Amino acid sequence: MGQPIDGRAVAQKVNAETSLQVERLKVNGVVPGLAVIMVGDDPASFSYVLAKEKKAQELGFKSFIYRMPPTTTQQELLELVRSCNENAEIHGILVQSPLPVALNEHELVMAIVPEKDVDGFHPINVGLCALGAPHALRPCTPAGIVRLLQECKVSTRGKRVVIIGRSRIVGLPLAHLLLQRGEFGDATLTVCHSRTPDLGSETRRAEILISAVGQAHLVKADMVRPGAVVIDVGVNRVEDATKPRGYRIVGDIDYDAVLPVASFVTPVPGGVGPMTIAMLMANTVQACRTQTGL
Amino acid sequence: MGQPIDGRAVAQKVNAETSLQVERLKVNGVVPGLAVIMVGDDPASFSYVLAKEKKAQELGFKSFIYRMPPTTTQQELLELVRSCNENAEIHGILVQSPLPVALNEHELVMAIVPEKDVDGFHPINVGLCALGAPHALRPCTPAGIVRLLQECKVSTRGKRVVIIGRSRIVGLPLAHLLLQRGEFGDATLTVCHSRTPDLGSETRRAEILISAVGQAHLVKADMVRPGAVVIDVGVNRVEDATKPRGYRIVGDIDYDAVLPVASFVTPVPGGVGPMTIAMLMANTVQACRTQTGL
Repeated sequence: MGQPIDGRAVAQKVNAETSLQVERLKVNGVVPGLAVIMVGDDPASFSYVLAKEKKAQELGFKSFIYRMPPTTTQQELLELVRSCNENAEIHGILVQSPLPVALNEHELVMAIVPEKDVDGFHPINVGLCALGAPHALRPCTPAGIVRLLQECKVSTRGKRVVIIGRSRIVGLPLAHLLLQRGEFGDATLTVCHSRTPDLGSETRRAEILISAVGQAHLVKADMVRPGAVVIDVGVNRVEDATKPRGYRIVGDIDYDAVLPVASFVTPVPGGVGPMTIAMLMANTVQACRTQTGL
Repeated sequence: MGQPIDGRAVAQKVNAETSLQVERLKVNGVVPGLAVIMVGDDPASFSYVLAKEKKAQELGFKSFIYRMPPTTTQQELLELVRSCNENAEIHGILVQSPLPVALNEHELVMAIVPEKDVDGFHPINVGLCALGAPHALRPCTPAGIVRLLQECKVSTRGKRVVIIGRSRIVGLPLAHLLLQRGEFGDATLTVCHSRTPDLGSETRRAEILISAVGQAHLVKADMVRPGAVVIDVGVNRVEDATKPRGYRIVGDIDYDAVLPVASFVTPVPGGVGPMTIAMLMANTVQACRTQTGL
């Protein structure tokens, strides 16, 4: 029988470390500042932004939340990004996805000065991360997954690791991290995706299996190697009439069926999710320290 | 029985395309310019630089070769890179590896303006390439390998592709290209390396196998799946008393043994090697067109 990985507990530990660093910075008269730009009124984005704002305040950051109307133009957003770039009180900037379709997200991310790009989405940070530059800002979800593995003492060195999904937010940058040298790198790494004809034949070989595609219960028990460590990045709504909102949140992994086969599994919610915000806060403090030299 | 892939013939075809583009640029009064910076007197580097110079001149480029003494300082090189950045006659700049150990290659590559980085080694180009940006300057050897597959009509879509090696020059950027969407992307991709405990168990699954580690005859016939396409990026010297120089050049693949098992194999020399220089020249013309808007 496998064990659940308690992402909330690890996130708390990361947040406690961040909090300690914030105190040290404050002694030096510096308060880390995080700017979040959101456009329109997507309810999921709204609640993500709220969660980021709450956590930032809880940790003693200065929080700058820009909730822009859906009619905001690309030019207005570029100017907002530029003013955040120039604002010395802001050390981290992120643009909440998704944006209204008329807007060019790539251009906005490119406009963020790389040292304030706490999401790690700017191409130069993607490149630095791929090249293993020691102080690159690492995308939050992949960094959170590596931290979970560290806390569970699951080394990836020489292990067969299979990632399902090749997104710029999770799959691709996670591949970069797991190919670096080190005890939590050095993986023999396979990336699968929608074009992989026989997914099970790949996943069954995985000593560590990570799914990040957003397909409810894609990974069944018979797709998991006995004893594997299984990390679930999926956040999917499935109808559930017994719930007040009419749906519940499940991952990409068929958790109840997979837990008995695996050695460790992250639940959804309460696994990778809390780590993403914790790593965003850690990245903001890292960015603040780099920018202030403290 | 497998077929050799004639890299020299494909390189000639690429060079003919480049030559045509050079003619069109000249009609508009523009001559593509390529600057190559080499430091010290490593004989292999010397012959690589010579080959690049020859090809550039053959194709009608303006060629700027900077052969710097081994005592050149980092500061002097940074100033040289900056003067190349500012020189409107130069559209492509590369720093030949390896540099004397006292020099910081990463810093020099970072100093090249990204649009002149025809090796595709600048972190921003690595990132753009990873993200599938349509006009990114792609590293030459990976781009050459994709072109060889295209010429042989070997689609990688949905195929199990195994890359041995994760270098910033070949393995990593090749992984980026093969994970993009498209007929010559969309691979189910595995990256192996020195920390992979049982290399054969990975390579035997490969429908397309690419070795880029620099270990003579690492890949034996029993490590190759029957009918696989095998691409050899290795360039290794092995002692050979029958040769005038006392050595011969072999690849990572045990060519004579693997050819009967595979469907296609690139020989060494005459496979991937000629493609690298051809793609460098193609990148320089691409950079020239981007910079001049022609």
